[in-house]
Amino acid sequence: MRPTLPLTLLALSLAACAHVPPGASAPAGKPLTTQEVIDASTPQDWRQLDPDDTLYLQLPEGMVVIELAPAFAPEHASNIRSLVQGRYFDGLSINRSQDNFVVQWGDPAGDELALRRPLGEARSTLPAEFSRPADGLDFRALPDRDGWAPQVGFVDGFAAARDPAAGKAWLTHCYGTVGAGRAMAPDSSNGSELYVVTGQSPRQLDLNITTVGRVVVGMEHLSTLVRGKGPLGFYTDPARRTQILAVRMASEIPEAQRANIEVMRTDTATWDAYVESRRNRRDEWYVHPAGHVDVCNLSVPVRAVPTVPAA
Amino acid sequence: MRPTLPLTLLALSLAACAHVPPGASAPAGKPLTTQEVIDASTPQDWRQLDPDDTLYLQLPEGMVVIELAPAFAPEHASNIRSLVQGRYFDGLSINRSQDNFVVQWGDPAGDELALRRPLGEARSTLPAEFSRPADGLDFRALPDRDGWAPQVGFVDGFAAARDPAAGKAWLTHCYGTVGAGRAMAPDSSNGSELYVVTGQSPRQLDLNITTVGRVVVGMEHLSTLVRGKGPLGFYTDPARRTQILAVRMASEIPEAQRANIEVMRTDTATWDAYVESRRNRRDEWYVHPAGHVDVCNLSVPVRAVPTVPAA
Repeated sequence: MRPTLPLTLLALSLAACAHVPPGASAPAGKPLTTQEVIDASTPQDWRQLDPDDTLYLQLPEGMVVIELAPAFAPEHASNIRSLVQGRYFDGLSINRSQDNFVVQWGDPAGDELALRRPLGEARSTLPAEFSRPADGLDFRALPDRDGWAPQVGFVDGFAAARDPAAGKAWLTHCYGTVGAGRAMAPDSSNGSELYVVTGQSPRQLDLNITTVGRVVVGMEHLSTLVRGKGPLGFYTDPARRTQILAVRMASEIPEAQRANIEVMRTDTATWDAYVESRRNRRDEWYVHPAGHVDVCNLSVPVRAVPTVPAA
Repeated sequence: MRPTLPLTLLALSLAACAHVPPGASAPAGKPLTTQEVIDASTPQDWRQLDPDDTLYLQLPEGMVVIELAPAFAPEHASNIRSLVQGRYFDGLSINRSQDNFVVQWGDPAGDELALRRPLGEARSTLPAEFSRPADGLDFRALPDRDGWAPQVGFVDGFAAARDPAAGKAWLTHCYGTVGAGRAMAPDSSNGSELYVVTGQSPRQLDLNITTVGRVVVGMEHLSTLVRGKGPLGFYTDPARRTQILAVRMASEIPEAQRANIEVMRTDTATWDAYVESRRNRRDEWYVHPAGHVDVCNLSVPVRAVPTVPAA
């Protein structure tokens, strides 16, 4: 049974976006706290999500908003759109939750191929998209060295890495990164099995699997799911699975019903100031500014679209 | 009301310890997978927890085993023992769960000092123990560079950092690290408010707060707690708090009822091989060994004490 769409965005909690403490305006000449950076931002420092690259994953617990990364995984992004438009995911389930690692959803039939739901118009195999050419990306590098990759930074809101010598770039596995599950063969993913990172950044997966996007809002609905007791965190008791009520592209939803959010741009001076405020915390509580930040410790700020006062 | 002790260790789930896939024995001459390293370990590669440094935190969801780190926070460890022995925590609650950050427990009265439970024999203020002299520690350094500290490695099972120039060492904030909450003053913690890291390693807290130990088993009972909707993840609805049934030192429990576990030693050749198996994954699934591992990506293996066959 595939339920009809209950996409009431009232359920969309922005509480998880508040990664920053309440703050006051900055004393002149002092380095800014994160809150001060956000308070000083202008409308041009924020962007809305492209509805053709935005998924709404509706769970009984609430809504998860996912941004696809077609610049890094064009074939997978396209196939996921086909799956969503074919209502492939509706009524399937979250089948795996492994503590400090990932949550994964798709067809609970798993390896029982004969029992799996048909993919409809979507393709069953795709090329591996573990990396892409570094050229042509607006890569905003972080000032600090990374242990896993020659360079790390952000590309259009996505945590990413780059190897100038090899001319390659890829998305890094951070909290909230979404990838396409695969079997042994590198080209065995098609986007019908998706996982999201819920634990310490498993960067060892970088360049080993196709990353397709990131969770923008609603991580708490995935990160709190009871852990599965089977190998790799699969649920041994089918009753523990969480049903997927529906998945929709934002472009399929009337504009007035879409998630009313903006995300901070990662190619601005405000972003650089935000990064610096995370490298060296200036909030009163801190006695030791670290002088460093890991690419996976930077959450891109999200906010409700501000209401414009009448002129 | 302080409930009596329901420390049936039957509830102790070791499922979360299985961070490694099932494996086979290694072909001769090939680098070992993690499972092969564990399979080849000897009894001398494992140790039992010191019952004087082991806490059992009993929640309705199950048991959490915490190892204290008196080598890094002797005053806090001593005070926490006093609090536990005075039954301070029994009947208090988990009051905060902030997504991708921490869970915190203690007296729900919070800042309402007049309402807080008396500390009994324990001290109300302690010196800050943000670091300690590097001398006198068996520091097993990792081969890879860290961004946050000059050196990282392990000390007796604890993820740690070291600054040789400053002659200091400290515990790093990784998934499962336990610390003592404080207010603005660095010396305002006393161990009656404890937090555990449930998200991406918040290393910016290093050297800013006293770390007192680590969760050895049972993280999933903390990491899955519903997130609080108030600032910093505090529960606004008291009904959302999780009651602490009891906290006991292992030394207070009859030996036969203690957690029947061992943890891998971090000062052996087996440990070094384990680290290498995480730096470069040799499992068949991986196509790109990373050649790197972060200190917070290394979970110290835990196992049930093997049963000894009769002679």
